[in-house]
Amino acid sequence: MTNNKKEVSPQAVVYVRLKEGVLDPQGVTIHKALQQMGYNEFISVRTGRFFELEVDSDSDNYDKRLDEVCSKLLANPVIESYRVEKL
Amino acid sequence: MTNNKKEVSPQAVVYVRLKEGVLDPQGVTIHKALQQMGYNEFISVRTGRFFELEVDSDSDNYDKRLDEVCSKLLANPVIESYRVEKL
Repeated sequence: MTNNKKEVSPQAVVYVRLKEGVLDPQGVTIHKALQQMGYNEFISVRTGRFFELEVDSDSDNYDKRLDEVCSKLLANPVIESYRVEKL
Repeated sequence: MTNNKKEVSPQAVVYVRLKEGVLDPQGVTIHKALQQMGYNEFISVRTGRFFELEVDSDSDNYDKRLDEVCSKLLANPVIESYRVEKL
């Protein structure tokens, strides 16, 4: 049950981002910081999170259960969208 | 200066994650939550952040400046690694 086992690669990565149109205060703050630091070529910044999951690949209903995990725990479907990348 | 211009796609995405061996308390917490919810097939969870950047592509030294932004603002190079994906 420990994290970070080096010998096993992540088997799925879930990318969670705010839906288009939802204000991203963290992104706005980073954008302002960039401008204050003189990086004026950056037009906008949007932030997101990702989760690298190691999964026991023998499990049944893997796709369905992974989707449940995304919508129940990793993302807030009201304001966020997610994308699953399997490795 | 506004975020989230629909007509322009992000031109670079920066993925920031904790280096191997650095404890990821958020990942551990999510992993515990998964187990409590009955999703026992998940072996570990590691978390990370990403940043979608719109950049004025005419800027000079784009690669160098983007790398500066990553190491100065978006990531903490002591404990985090980053990867830049250009779109």
